[in-house]
Amino acid sequence: MAGSTTLALDAMGGDHGPEVVVPGAALSLSRHPELRFILAGDAARINACLAEHPDLKNCARVVHTDLSIGMHDKPSQALRRGKGTSMWLALEAVKNGEAQAAVSAGNTGALMALARLVLRQMPGIERPAIAAQWPTIGRPSIVLDVGSNIGASARQLVEYALMGAAMSRAHFGNERPTVGLLNVGVEEIKGNEEVRQAHALLKQGNLGLNIDYKGFVEGDQIGQGIADVIVVEGFAGNIALKTAEGTARQIATYLRTAMSRSVVTRIGAVLAKSGFEVLKGQMDPRRLNGGPFLGLNGIAIKSHGGTDALGFATAVDLGYEMAEKRVIDRIAADIASIAGKLDAPVGGGPG
Amino acid sequence: MAGSTTLALDAMGGDHGPEVVVPGAALSLSRHPELRFILAGDAARINACLAEHPDLKNCARVVHTDLSIGMHDKPSQALRRGKGTSMWLALEAVKNGEAQAAVSAGNTGALMALARLVLRQMPGIERPAIAAQWPTIGRPSIVLDVGSNIGASARQLVEYALMGAAMSRAHFGNERPTVGLLNVGVEEIKGNEEVRQAHALLKQGNLGLNIDYKGFVEGDQIGQGIADVIVVEGFAGNIALKTAEGTARQIATYLRTAMSRSVVTRIGAVLAKSGFEVLKGQMDPRRLNGGPFLGLNGIAIKSHGGTDALGFATAVDLGYEMAEKRVIDRIAADIASIAGKLDAPVGGGPG
Repeated sequence: MAGSTTLALDAMGGDHGPEVVVPGAALSLSRHPELRFILAGDAARINACLAEHPDLKNCARVVHTDLSIGMHDKPSQALRRGKGTSMWLALEAVKNGEAQAAVSAGNTGALMALARLVLRQMPGIERPAIAAQWPTIGRPSIVLDVGSNIGASARQLVEYALMGAAMSRAHFGNERPTVGLLNVGVEEIKGNEEVRQAHALLKQGNLGLNIDYKGFVEGDQIGQGIADVIVVEGFAGNIALKTAEGTARQIATYLRTAMSRSVVTRIGAVLAKSGFEVLKGQMDPRRLNGGPFLGLNGIAIKSHGGTDALGFATAVDLGYEMAEKRVIDRIAADIASIAGKLDAPVGGGPG
Repeated sequence: MAGSTTLALDAMGGDHGPEVVVPGAALSLSRHPELRFILAGDAARINACLAEHPDLKNCARVVHTDLSIGMHDKPSQALRRGKGTSMWLALEAVKNGEAQAAVSAGNTGALMALARLVLRQMPGIERPAIAAQWPTIGRPSIVLDVGSNIGASARQLVEYALMGAAMSRAHFGNERPTVGLLNVGVEEIKGNEEVRQAHALLKQGNLGLNIDYKGFVEGDQIGQGIADVIVVEGFAGNIALKTAEGTARQIATYLRTAMSRSVVTRIGAVLAKSGFEVLKGQMDPRRLNGGPFLGLNGIAIKSHGGTDALGFATAVDLGYEMAEKRVIDRIAADIASIAGKLDAPVGGGPG
């Protein structure tokens, strides 16, 4: 299969399993005909779904297992009993070089734990991170870490910056991505020691990273598209991401209630339907589905558990692009290029 | 002035100074005729504004100063040069017992620094916090800390819980407020050590606090109104607050663009106008303006710097209610009642 890219999919992950994973893969295949798939899970259920997608069937190999990770299993349970599950097999296919990326809509904690165990951390990376694609009024941004770790050292924040930049190059084509460091104010005195030190490292410029560091940014600037990559430790990053999702849902509730308050507003809403459709599209989480774990020896992508085929296909597309653009190799090269520099004392560099 | 409540206002604070502060105070006075005011700042400018508000003029004492804190002064500058400024005089009036609360639309860092210096921390409180009023699809919630401190110990998080609960009782009339602890997941194993310990303390129940502790909550649940009080350390809390504000602005931008995309959507939007007005009202930051610093020996309230008279009046109303309901005394009593209990080893209590 020279020239092809193979993705390993956890066919049992998510709220719907193969009924979403298989049509999602078929949709992505229609956009990227060079894709090949390994589908891990219950062969009977997978094959039943494949029957409706003959094109995909020709490009897919089914790897059967009776085992799967439950959506509410704890990471510790996943580590103890994860071996041989559909999620495990998808990750193992990446580890063995049979696939270039794994995609799962299974539970985040379990995927994180198994991905670390199977794929192992990339040499030189202290901590892997989960990246999220964040809609903005401009191009989408990448925000990381959104919950892989609680807290981060200055060095780890710099790692996040370069991993996010590599993803931004691969997925959005930003050759020299802008990077912002999330903080509680834009002045140099703000934030904790780790954030201030990461700021000093990133603005030195002599790290030789191909990024355009914009300095501190605040929470209200993310949605304005202030930077291609937003770096934050995982506790605050996870809370920011979920708060934004919650706020969007809250406003959608307000809007529905407001539009149904009288006959006249209802008529107005019908006339404005095409506008609301555009709005709905902009706020559609399926459009930017897929959060990769960065910093491992292979690509593992988390899809939303409740998404449909359209959303799952977006996560598959992301896996394809990251594999095609060899994001892992580029992160490894960036990490190698800054080896030693991060441990140098801060402040001696040329501003 | 028996039975009256006096508020000290920093008349020079905010983007507009007395031109917003004076009509804002007049509006609040019309709602609470028993209010009296101390207006600190440039007497000529204040008196010029008071000329248009005779009722307020009769209830206000002007304390002149040429000095004021700039909107971009750093907290360190405020500490060095803050004495005698309008912000300082407002806080000093509270300290001296001439006023029961101070309200300023001046810069947050300076107000925080001067309020700590002038009013001092309440005995038994390790760290003061800034509380924000958060709109939800139900009743508004109180979220704290939104940026007074970076990081918080378990004990400090418990302090935030009881200070937020006292504010919730005073301002929203929730006698036994529900309290949630913001975390990156709702399972007991999630979060850092401080958050897990605070959880253990709060769920013991034998702290004797008159709160209904709901356990961990996630960022997307704040806007759903999951609890009257949401407790979080200040770095993540500030980022959550600003991210929510940014997301609301982002969606407003989407919505305006979507409604103006064609003649038909524009007509629809005109018909739906009354609905959009309701939505605008729900999302109006003036409706919930005013964030108190809690944990000091007196009430100091931060108003948004860019707000108008309507918004400033909301912050003044909050000061009035907190003074009337003697929030400071109630926090002091709560703190005294749990003295010693917070330092006891966790886990021995009745789950």
